[in-house]
Amino acid sequence: MFVKQTKQYSVGVLGATGTVGQRFILHLHSHPFFKLVALGASSRSAGQKYSAVTRWKQSKPIPATVKDMVIAECTTDNFKHCDIVFSGLDHDVAGPIEHSLRQAEVAVFSNAKNYRRDPQVPLVVPLINTDHFEVLAAQRASLGLNKGYIVANANCSTTALVVPLAALEKAFGPLEQVQATTLQAISGSGYPGLPSLDILDNVVPYIGSEEDKMEWETYKILGGMTQDRSAFDYHEAAPLKVSATCNRVPVIDGHMVCASVKFAAKEKPSPEAVIKAFNDYRCDAQNVGAPSAPEQVITVHEEQDRPQPRLDRDHQNGAGVNVGRVREDSIFDIKFVVLANNVQIGAATSSVMNAEVAALQGYV
Amino acid sequence: MFVKQTKQYSVGVLGATGTVGQRFILHLHSHPFFKLVALGASSRSAGQKYSAVTRWKQSKPIPATVKDMVIAECTTDNFKHCDIVFSGLDHDVAGPIEHSLRQAEVAVFSNAKNYRRDPQVPLVVPLINTDHFEVLAAQRASLGLNKGYIVANANCSTTALVVPLAALEKAFGPLEQVQATTLQAISGSGYPGLPSLDILDNVVPYIGSEEDKMEWETYKILGGMTQDRSAFDYHEAAPLKVSATCNRVPVIDGHMVCASVKFAAKEKPSPEAVIKAFNDYRCDAQNVGAPSAPEQVITVHEEQDRPQPRLDRDHQNGAGVNVGRVREDSIFDIKFVVLANNVQIGAATSSVMNAEVAALQGYV
Amino acid sequence: MFVKQTKQYSVGVLGATGTVGQRFILHLHSHPFFKLVALGASSRSAGQKYSAVTRWKQSKPIPATVKDMVIAECTTDNFKHCDIVFSGLDHDVAGPIEHSLRQAEVAVFSNAKNYRRDPQVPLVVPLINTDHFEVLAAQRASLGLNKGYIVANANCSTTALVVPLAALEKAFGPLEQVQATTLQAISGSGYPGLPSLDILDNVVPYIGSEEDKMEWETYKILGGMTQDRSAFDYHEAAPLKVSATCNRVPVIDGHMVCASVKFAAKEKPSPEAVIKAFNDYRCDAQNVGAPSAPEQVITVHEEQDRPQPRLDRDHQNGAGVNVGRVREDSIFDIKFVVLANNVQIGAATSSVMNAEVAALQGYV
Amino acid sequence: MFVKQTKQYSVGVLGATGTVGQRFILHLHSHPFFKLVALGASSRSAGQKYSAVTRWKQSKPIPATVKDMVIAECTTDNFKHCDIVFSGLDHDVAGPIEHSLRQAEVAVFSNAKNYRRDPQVPLVVPLINTDHFEVLAAQRASLGLNKGYIVANANCSTTALVVPLAALEKAFGPLEQVQATTLQAISGSGYPGLPSLDILDNVVPYIGSEEDKMEWETYKILGGMTQDRSAFDYHEAAPLKVSATCNRVPVIDGHMVCASVKFAAKEKPSPEAVIKAFNDYRCDAQNVGAPSAPEQVITVHEEQDRPQPRLDRDHQNGAGVNVGRVREDSIFDIKFVVLANNVQIGAATSSVMNAEVAALQGYV
Repeated sequence: MFVKQTKQYSVGVLGATGTVGQRFILHLHSHPFFKLVALGASSRSAGQKYSAVTRWKQSKPIPATVKDMVIAECTTDNFKHCDIVFSGLDHDVAGPIEHSLRQAEVAVFSNAKNYRRDPQVPLVVPLINTDHFEVLAAQRASLGLNKGYIVANANCSTTALVVPLAALEKAFGPLEQVQATTLQAISGSGYPGLPSLDILDNVVPYIGSEEDKMEWETYKILGGMTQDRSAFDYHEAAPLKVSATCNRVPVIDGHMVCASVKFAAKEKPSPEAVIKAFNDYRCDAQNVGAPSAPEQVITVHEEQDRPQPRLDRDHQNGAGVNVGRVREDSIFDIKFVVLANNVQIGAATSSVMNAEVAALQGYV
Repeated sequence: MFVKQTKQYSVGVLGATGTVGQRFILHLHSHPFFKLVALGASSRSAGQKYSAVTRWKQSKPIPATVKDMVIAECTTDNFKHCDIVFSGLDHDVAGPIEHSLRQAEVAVFSNAKNYRRDPQVPLVVPLINTDHFEVLAAQRASLGLNKGYIVANANCSTTALVVPLAALEKAFGPLEQVQATTLQAISGSGYPGLPSLDILDNVVPYIGSEEDKMEWETYKILGGMTQDRSAFDYHEAAPLKVSATCNRVPVIDGHMVCASVKFAAKEKPSPEAVIKAFNDYRCDAQNVGAPSAPEQVITVHEEQDRPQPRLDRDHQNGAGVNVGRVREDSIFDIKFVVLANNVQIGAATSSVMNAEVAALQGYV
Repeated sequence: MFVKQTKQYSVGVLGATGTVGQRFILHLHSHPFFKLVALGASSRSAGQKYSAVTRWKQSKPIPATVKDMVIAECTTDNFKHCDIVFSGLDHDVAGPIEHSLRQAEVAVFSNAKNYRRDPQVPLVVPLINTDHFEVLAAQRASLGLNKGYIVANANCSTTALVVPLAALEKAFGPLEQVQATTLQAISGSGYPGLPSLDILDNVVPYIGSEEDKMEWETYKILGGMTQDRSAFDYHEAAPLKVSATCNRVPVIDGHMVCASVKFAAKEKPSPEAVIKAFNDYRCDAQNVGAPSAPEQVITVHEEQDRPQPRLDRDHQNGAGVNVGRVREDSIFDIKFVVLANNVQIGAATSSVMNAEVAALQGYV
Repeated sequence: MFVKQTKQYSVGVLGATGTVGQRFILHLHSHPFFKLVALGASSRSAGQKYSAVTRWKQSKPIPATVKDMVIAECTTDNFKHCDIVFSGLDHDVAGPIEHSLRQAEVAVFSNAKNYRRDPQVPLVVPLINTDHFEVLAAQRASLGLNKGYIVANANCSTTALVVPLAALEKAFGPLEQVQATTLQAISGSGYPGLPSLDILDNVVPYIGSEEDKMEWETYKILGGMTQDRSAFDYHEAAPLKVSATCNRVPVIDGHMVCASVKFAAKEKPSPEAVIKAFNDYRCDAQNVGAPSAPEQVITVHEEQDRPQPRLDRDHQNGAGVNVGRVREDSIFDIKFVVLANNVQIGAATSSVMNAEVAALQGYV
């Protein structure tokens, strides 16, 4: 099912001057069917040109078409003319404006964490569970809306872990146990984020509330919906137990996860079968022709010392995930390492790809 | 049992110009009862002054008493007058000379891996299993020796893991499963070791044969001896299953291990009980008054983001280990993080402390 | 003068498995008029597929068209069918084969240092002195050749410095004094290059023979040819004195140079005039339409803390240089900072762009 | 002149919870004649135990004697009983309280920049110009004080540069030109200081107002006093011109400076003579027996790639400076590289050593 898209959509970006906002802009400024028409930031920046107030931190320059766009304050009035709004806001301000835009019948795709736990908000990793969009009807209905809704994307470390897990469940049935230890890049904590004195020649074995997030987000993403598609019901759907341990390492971009999994089924797949399942895995974003979808969702590396953040994070523009070292585990069944680009598929790319799929499937 | 030591021992260092050798020298140059009398290196350096041929890589300068010592080639004749020889040789040359010195009735304490798997060579982490020296009688007997023997110390990553495991076994009985994921410092691979292009802004999820080493070394160290003290019999002694995953991170010194453990006993200790067991743990090296023994074997950090390599690796001169984040695990029973200074307790300090205990217990 | 190129040239790469060779391949595999037909490496790799023997270290994957190419040994017979050969060989092996290929009437563009000091070999930074190709006639004549020659490109740190110097000389006449202090990336020393233990959390204030190279290469590049175009005569042409100080810093790619310059003319340009001269500077590579030429040779950054290696090294694919902090100097006249991508314009890109200009100007 | 000190002094530390304050505490907690009696911080921390409110960032633990000390607010009343107060305050709050304590007849040794430019406040690098204490009489007189005064220490990068310059002036007479390019550690900007995303795999060629500071502080420190010792008169005393360029590099501690100097005298010293002058240089802090004074003020390294921050910053506890690569300069006369530990002699150590000299010379 490849859908040819001709319609154009007006899109806006909230938090456009921040690091996630900057990534949104790089994704959207020359998009085939999203037209960037509005940039939002705090009242302090409002009324000024984008290039004048932004501490641009990307290795690609500010797109010429965006440089002189005038920033608007993040109010409903300023963004209600958009078909889609992408939110790169910090969670401390994201809640009310995202809700208010939804009430104004805007489709909101948010990278913030505020509505991730909401039982009627789909938490979507576009390489896995775009079928969770089915709950949007119930979300709209319960708020009396025709078009407005909120879709959240997952935390960056969850995204890395959950993509290969989804491929394994698809091929071999439910998982019973997942042990995940992360080595996460500093860009995961935003800018300014970690002080350099804390991380140079160092590792920090703690990231606030990250372990908890990885555990329940995995349950929600891999879990099911209620029979009537009115909400998520992941507690029952998941016999799965996830134990996450999170570390920060001195790497710019690219979260690595060392994962061990135990399958529910008695018959255990071999490492070779697992590699084949990873290689064969495809997703709806590919099937509907989402422009940001990677050619290969999971790239399996054969070299025994790969994937590595610096060498593999930009593969396919960071839109897929990389897996390596698939081998047997003496306690669990299989272990492997995953690398995902936390600022691409782990953040802005996820929101954009979610919106692409939603648009192509008629949800916008 | 605190033994006051008055006897002096003549000691030599093999591989004295390498990084492990440099650490040996810093430990030994002003030792209370070891007198450094011989330095060995390759024939290329032999006959020259230590300071003239050594690429010194320590932040403390070459000790004044060592600077002008003349290097000898690593032959039996050059070191057979020593009571004790410490070997910092690479494994590709360590085997024959260590064996030959043992045959010359020298007590050899080796940091090399060559004899670690030998069933009559004790693999000793001085904070844990100096009781394994009991096998030395059998080692000597089978070779017809009076005084000569080889004692090996463990791999640096094993050392970090196995100290808290020993404390847990002592307090709560046998362990059933241990899942360990490491974040290891670059100094663990010696000098020149890792090229900078491989590790700056990067993580390497593979260290050759390290995972295998961590697993079976843990079995041998925590395992038992045969009833007649003639050899190690760790296969039967260990119902324990260890699954290790090893990563290299851009940290100079200090190996971190994220560990999850499952106890064999039905009753599981609480995190508080585990913390108490760590705090209370003492070892023979402390009891006999080994000069290099730390005051506290396991230092438990209360801050949720500690231990960290850069801040905690030099605590007690790196002679103990640091533990933090002791908490329940949703799959195993308890998880925590360990930090050990891989170039101190993970290498030279272990050999020296082993020799101190051996000397104080009459094995030299 | 924009030359439309329709002719195709067969090109080979010596040292194809090394890091410079890998860069050559990324440049050449889809080039508009260079067709990559031969890959050379040591006899150990000869006869094997490129992907089988190469430790690929680039963030882009091996081009599909190159993966299965079979490696040839670097002999004259194996490469004499090429119109152009690019040499990414180490200097210890580059000399004889480069000479021998020249004798076989091949145009050799070398990144090695062997022939840089040869008075008949042009040392060409393609953004500056492609007019030095005029000496090639004399080079051929003295060797009795019709087509064969060697062109060298400059050392990476020289390249960074000399581009803005050339722009200043063009606009304001000869320079009298240049003081340059570098902060050079680790990739400048190749792979494996610097051990990570030497450079993590560190700076090394010394790079073997680099300061000398920066000084005399600058003289040759900025200097003149003899009147009859038979050789270079830079000693007389250069009243210029260069004092270089070179440091290695823990940066992957991108050499920075802090430069202070004193003009020979009495009237000194203002910082604004210098900025204008940098912005206005154009080169032959642009004029003849070399595909690898940057749109802007010197990009002047207005932010006071730019250029920075990580943010600016990939600007224009690293084919130009970046300048910032142009200001008055209390001892010299003007000071500024330059950043050049040492693995692009500082290495392979220079050779390729040199060959493009040579081809477009009829030298091949 | 070695003064044996028996008197004890009560000392306090302002800004005790910050990183400079933490260094002061490590210096003072077991000082032979300074007794630490008061710790000051913001009102938020006042009344609480030191260990409870401090984010301790040192690799040595909080001294046992300091852990339970109760923090006082930084008011005059809380510190006027001290003989000496060390100020580790930020410049935005340091001004009024330092002045007020001086008015309360306390001797204030400040690491803040507020009074550095005051013509009656000595700007003292203890390895150089403790003779500038002579101005204190005039400072007190103009404020009608008996004992109170303020002594400032220099900026960390200035300190590194100025120590070898002083040795050169002492041996060879006035300098005419000094060109200095720095590679400064991240700890120089305090905590949190630089975001890790700004400096990992990067260099920042700009440090706000640092170049200006290095230039005029050097003039004041190397310059003279008015004939009546009532003030500093460095403008006339200094024919010297300094041109500074400042860079931030990813190094934890240790500022490096690449310096080129031109002597006023016609006869230029050889590199050997310069090395001898560095080796022979002694200072008052040594002569009066200041406990924190290094044995050797300037350590000259013979290896061509030293000093290096990671290997040499802790030499002599960072109380001296390290010099290397002394060689001729083709534009200036001599060039060399200096390394100083910016958090030791570049900050807290300077204040403490200044106070030690002041006490031993009867200024307290």
